[in-house]
Amino acid sequence: MTDTPLDIGVLGYRFMGKAHANAFARLPMFFEDAPEVNREVIVGRDEDALADAAERLGFERTATDWRDVVEEVDVFYNLGPNHVHAEPSIAALEAGTPTFCEKPLAPTLDDARAMADAASDAGVPAGVAFNYRFVPAIQYAKNLIDAGELGELHHFRGRYLQDWLVDPEAPWSWRNDAEMAGSGALGDLGAHTIDLARFLVGDISEVSGHLRTFVDERPVDGSDETKPVTVDDAYSAQVDFENGVMGTLEASRFANGRKNDHTIEIEGSKGSLRFSLERLNELELLREDSRGYETILVTDAEDPYVDHWWPPGHVIGWEHTFVHENYEFLSAVAEGGAYEPSFDDGLAVQRVLDAVERSDERGERVVVN
Amino acid sequence: MTDTPLDIGVLGYRFMGKAHANAFARLPMFFEDAPEVNREVIVGRDEDALADAAERLGFERTATDWRDVVEEVDVFYNLGPNHVHAEPSIAALEAGTPTFCEKPLAPTLDDARAMADAASDAGVPAGVAFNYRFVPAIQYAKNLIDAGELGELHHFRGRYLQDWLVDPEAPWSWRNDAEMAGSGALGDLGAHTIDLARFLVGDISEVSGHLRTFVDERPVDGSDETKPVTVDDAYSAQVDFENGVMGTLEASRFANGRKNDHTIEIEGSKGSLRFSLERLNELELLREDSRGYETILVTDAEDPYVDHWWPPGHVIGWEHTFVHENYEFLSAVAEGGAYEPSFDDGLAVQRVLDAVERSDERGERVVVN
Amino acid sequence: MTDTPLDIGVLGYRFMGKAHANAFARLPMFFEDAPEVNREVIVGRDEDALADAAERLGFERTATDWRDVVEEVDVFYNLGPNHVHAEPSIAALEAGTPTFCEKPLAPTLDDARAMADAASDAGVPAGVAFNYRFVPAIQYAKNLIDAGELGELHHFRGRYLQDWLVDPEAPWSWRNDAEMAGSGALGDLGAHTIDLARFLVGDISEVSGHLRTFVDERPVDGSDETKPVTVDDAYSAQVDFENGVMGTLEASRFANGRKNDHTIEIEGSKGSLRFSLERLNELELLREDSRGYETILVTDAEDPYVDHWWPPGHVIGWEHTFVHENYEFLSAVAEGGAYEPSFDDGLAVQRVLDAVERSDERGERVVVN
Amino acid sequence: MTDTPLDIGVLGYRFMGKAHANAFARLPMFFEDAPEVNREVIVGRDEDALADAAERLGFERTATDWRDVVEEVDVFYNLGPNHVHAEPSIAALEAGTPTFCEKPLAPTLDDARAMADAASDAGVPAGVAFNYRFVPAIQYAKNLIDAGELGELHHFRGRYLQDWLVDPEAPWSWRNDAEMAGSGALGDLGAHTIDLARFLVGDISEVSGHLRTFVDERPVDGSDETKPVTVDDAYSAQVDFENGVMGTLEASRFANGRKNDHTIEIEGSKGSLRFSLERLNELELLREDSRGYETILVTDAEDPYVDHWWPPGHVIGWEHTFVHENYEFLSAVAEGGAYEPSFDDGLAVQRVLDAVERSDERGERVVVN
Repeated sequence: MTDTPLDIGVLGYRFMGKAHANAFARLPMFFEDAPEVNREVIVGRDEDALADAAERLGFERTATDWRDVVEEVDVFYNLGPNHVHAEPSIAALEAGTPTFCEKPLAPTLDDARAMADAASDAGVPAGVAFNYRFVPAIQYAKNLIDAGELGELHHFRGRYLQDWLVDPEAPWSWRNDAEMAGSGALGDLGAHTIDLARFLVGDISEVSGHLRTFVDERPVDGSDETKPVTVDDAYSAQVDFENGVMGTLEASRFANGRKNDHTIEIEGSKGSLRFSLERLNELELLREDSRGYETILVTDAEDPYVDHWWPPGHVIGWEHTFVHENYEFLSAVAEGGAYEPSFDDGLAVQRVLDAVERSDERGERVVVN
Repeated sequence: MTDTPLDIGVLGYRFMGKAHANAFARLPMFFEDAPEVNREVIVGRDEDALADAAERLGFERTATDWRDVVEEVDVFYNLGPNHVHAEPSIAALEAGTPTFCEKPLAPTLDDARAMADAASDAGVPAGVAFNYRFVPAIQYAKNLIDAGELGELHHFRGRYLQDWLVDPEAPWSWRNDAEMAGSGALGDLGAHTIDLARFLVGDISEVSGHLRTFVDERPVDGSDETKPVTVDDAYSAQVDFENGVMGTLEASRFANGRKNDHTIEIEGSKGSLRFSLERLNELELLREDSRGYETILVTDAEDPYVDHWWPPGHVIGWEHTFVHENYEFLSAVAEGGAYEPSFDDGLAVQRVLDAVERSDERGERVVVN
Repeated sequence: MTDTPLDIGVLGYRFMGKAHANAFARLPMFFEDAPEVNREVIVGRDEDALADAAERLGFERTATDWRDVVEEVDVFYNLGPNHVHAEPSIAALEAGTPTFCEKPLAPTLDDARAMADAASDAGVPAGVAFNYRFVPAIQYAKNLIDAGELGELHHFRGRYLQDWLVDPEAPWSWRNDAEMAGSGALGDLGAHTIDLARFLVGDISEVSGHLRTFVDERPVDGSDETKPVTVDDAYSAQVDFENGVMGTLEASRFANGRKNDHTIEIEGSKGSLRFSLERLNELELLREDSRGYETILVTDAEDPYVDHWWPPGHVIGWEHTFVHENYEFLSAVAEGGAYEPSFDDGLAVQRVLDAVERSDERGERVVVN
Repeated sequence: MTDTPLDIGVLGYRFMGKAHANAFARLPMFFEDAPEVNREVIVGRDEDALADAAERLGFERTATDWRDVVEEVDVFYNLGPNHVHAEPSIAALEAGTPTFCEKPLAPTLDDARAMADAASDAGVPAGVAFNYRFVPAIQYAKNLIDAGELGELHHFRGRYLQDWLVDPEAPWSWRNDAEMAGSGALGDLGAHTIDLARFLVGDISEVSGHLRTFVDERPVDGSDETKPVTVDDAYSAQVDFENGVMGTLEASRFANGRKNDHTIEIEGSKGSLRFSLERLNELELLREDSRGYETILVTDAEDPYVDHWWPPGHVIGWEHTFVHENYEFLSAVAEGGAYEPSFDDGLAVQRVLDAVERSDERGERVVVN
């Protein structure tokens, strides 16, 4: 355990920057044994916006070049767009700096492999931001499955539905660009689903995948131009798990009426479960001796992480998953332990993303490499 | 319009025989303009069971050979197992007898083609029993879609989940046999989903399909033997509709906790909807100017078929779909009109079932022939 | 057991006439051991409407005076408005004719007492139409409570919400008139709730009641006049049960958005349950070893009455409660057994209705007499 | 606006101390225009526990006597048990210190009156902690009602159900003691419901109330003794609002299966709404042109307070209501503005609590004084 606070450097100061900064700020009050951290430096290109963010998010200083930062800090957070994941993360790892990277690990399988290799060489914690593993209801589900409460699993059904692109006039962003994002709904949303599939069920061996782009170009904010949409707006997949479970996956940014509906359903020989991120405090559970799904509020003191927060029925929010995630990652850094989901997990997810794309291109069922 | 009652002959006296007999019996009280029918003859092989059924279901006589019956009656209902669909139905149609056949239309695409050809040659109403078209909420949904209330459609999601085979000791039946049933969950449950997909969205052009059998043999009731399961316990599919809608389909007899959960979800540019058969009086609807799904009890007098039944909020059941279906079919027979879903619709569904099987065998995305 | 069919005479041919006629018609196909019945005569004042109804509902003849009918038939059904409950029912009972009366038993406590006395003197089955006892989910709930599955009961919460009078221009009917109806939402809806309270929990000893009329007069259909509303549009009550359970009751015809929402909630030391009539195939159950309410589809073969109908998950409707109710009542008539809910049960409910009205008038908590 | 941070003194360091300290800590990152605050001093009697709390919750120092504190600080938070509300709050107000007090305002109506008088004399913000006003869905509901979207209101239904005392062996605490708590479920839970009733509907004029204690004594933790329960375990009430709305209220600590289910239902002539605290990101809304309740995720940027947090569908938790509440209160302190809910609102709620108790004692409907 370190005696001095861990100096943290963060690349990216928007949505994810805020979510992680909030997590750093909340740890001391709620997780007493979390390592002490110092929000040291925040990295970006727009100096004014960066200064604002540093002020608001409580960072001591700013920097415009991540190259120095990755060597100076104790922990490096790469929260930039996908195409910025590989180079700074690898540099940080080569400097021996524990690194945490947003998901998906990279825009391409090659990048992801390089990153996982760098992590392996570095031998320091390298985490990927699959924060939904840290929802108490998901951890509780994991425990139930590991304890055999669902029996032998038969079905996995995962879908992540949003609707922020259903308007064809919604503006273009880097998330619509294949170079910068790698893929669209597939990598942005599907990566989360695939990580939960691996976490809860196991590895995926074969995939039939299908991608769809509904709107081919979008207006650029503040201009008269449009830019092409070069990624998928939605994907679906049929998968086989190594352990024989049958899975169906889907995500969309065109699912009108769904804001952030990440739904997981698993059916087994003894029991089944359902989870939706829009009601993340709840788990629906079919037990062996039950006649129907039980709606459980996963907010009891015995539930994962809940004793750190509030009494039963006093629900937590989306952001709490970041607190749990950072607690685990920073504890691994401070104690020199392993952290999961690691870059290897990120790579494993990337292999499935890649398989979905290959399958779609070829019109064939493919093996996950 | 006929002046005399239509003499009805029914092949099959179990579950479906009861469901249709009940519908015949209820028409006069609730659908005043329905043609009068006479439950003339019920056909089967086990004479004792048949006599019992005739008594209970109100048929005037029994017969053990359908060959005579199909010529004598005014309307022939083929409610037998799938492998008995083709020959008697074709014979009836060749005799010029309007024919109604349970779904799926046939165990094989060839049989289905022959049946549709026979119907075409006969020029009399030939209906296939996709009764879920006749749920008021589904008809209401169809009207909304046709009126453009959902805008341009993007997604179709259909799944039909049951759990009656999750126990590996559940006994073998003809539904587990490829010769007799054609397929398993695919033809039994998936046929319904595909019919609703066609009814609500349109024709399917391409399919990636996947089949799975979880339990390979099952005990034979009343013996020490087992018989092999030669059909799927579950299927999934990714489909493209001709109009560009993206679809995912699934059905299972291993979805522990679901009894009869046929769920349809459609998302469009202006609105969306959700339906589940276990709550068949309800439709969840996202409207253009709404912020979320509205839970509608489709039990108002203005709703399809509802004025024949009870006041708002006095819910109807599964069996009512058979009354609506038979009202429409028998009206078409009596008035000489067309009926849908017809044998052509049954064939169209069969083409998709066939495509799912071909795709699964080849590991390729296939075109629906 | 009678050898010849029971001749049934029915007073009233509208909503309730149709609901019971349908039940008579369906018994032979679904309840093989139900006594055979003959829809003999239907009684009313408007001869044309009556002839139509007889035709549609399958009655052999019509009559305009109930006085003869009650002596001639084997069973008398009094399905008229509340103010017509007492005299014909008493006459029937005095003639020794088993009698079934719609709810509430009478518009006044005095009438109800006279009716219960007549039933007692007659010694033949005298039933009151609290059909919601015969919902399978309610029977299942009753069995759970009787078996001690909920432990010692603490809370009962019953409310029955409709919205058909929320429009002040909704037309006046006999249901708005104190002379004819006795009370409004209280007797029409509250009587059902109070019966289920008694059925599931026990007798009520003390009541604080409150009545409210939101709209004082309503237009008369087909005229320029209005008539005064002399009954409640809504009531609420706080009750103590003899066994110490604490109860709250409510009903309204002004609950905008609720069509037929009869909700029952019971909480005990070991478990709890919830039921809503709009989803009458479901029961939500908290078990002793559960963490949340389990949503049970009460459609298994082992569930009350369900083996007479369809396989699991094939839901039944509102009207099926009338089939169950008539099966029980007619069996009691045929076998000479007792039937519950009886006129005594109707009177017990009436005592509570009366207590609510007395409490409201006096502004005091009152004892149920 | 002050230039220097507001020094805050807090009495109480348990559940509510943590909830408010968290809110203070989060304001700078999420509410940029919130006044700066200094967590100056935390007050309690147990010096060790206090020192721990100060460390964890980020307070600069501790104190064991509130008398000095209330004069020294810029803002005083009284988060102690109910019997400690009056004296320190009045002393703070007499010292001209803006004061924020947990709910209910006091154990007795007399205390509440004295506190409201002190606030009135002081002329500084005096707030009472009805935090549920600050749920975005509740604020959104308030806006809808104020805009007339529900039309003329008819019904209010509020209930707050928990189950932490259903076990008779659950230990005694000050919350079971009339001297310290004033009342039980009534003041603890009912006060919240009554505040929302006033906020959303208006003032209550008449009350029939009913209290119940299910378990008369409870074990004292860490001893063999028991102590008497001298407050209610549950209450119910029927209320009339001044504007003619009919209301029913209920709360319990014995509602087995409900952890923190604060449900509000309002029905009006044009629309209706439903809210449950266990799903606090959602509002169910019936609109004038709708056929059913729409389930709205109140997480859009336009929704109250939501732009300070996360994108649509990224749900917030219970604790966020404290951030909103403190933002509003501290802004009022800094800017010299008014704050609601004020001590006057706290007193108005107390009058209803008192009326419920008086009504229960007398067995009569009573006027709220």
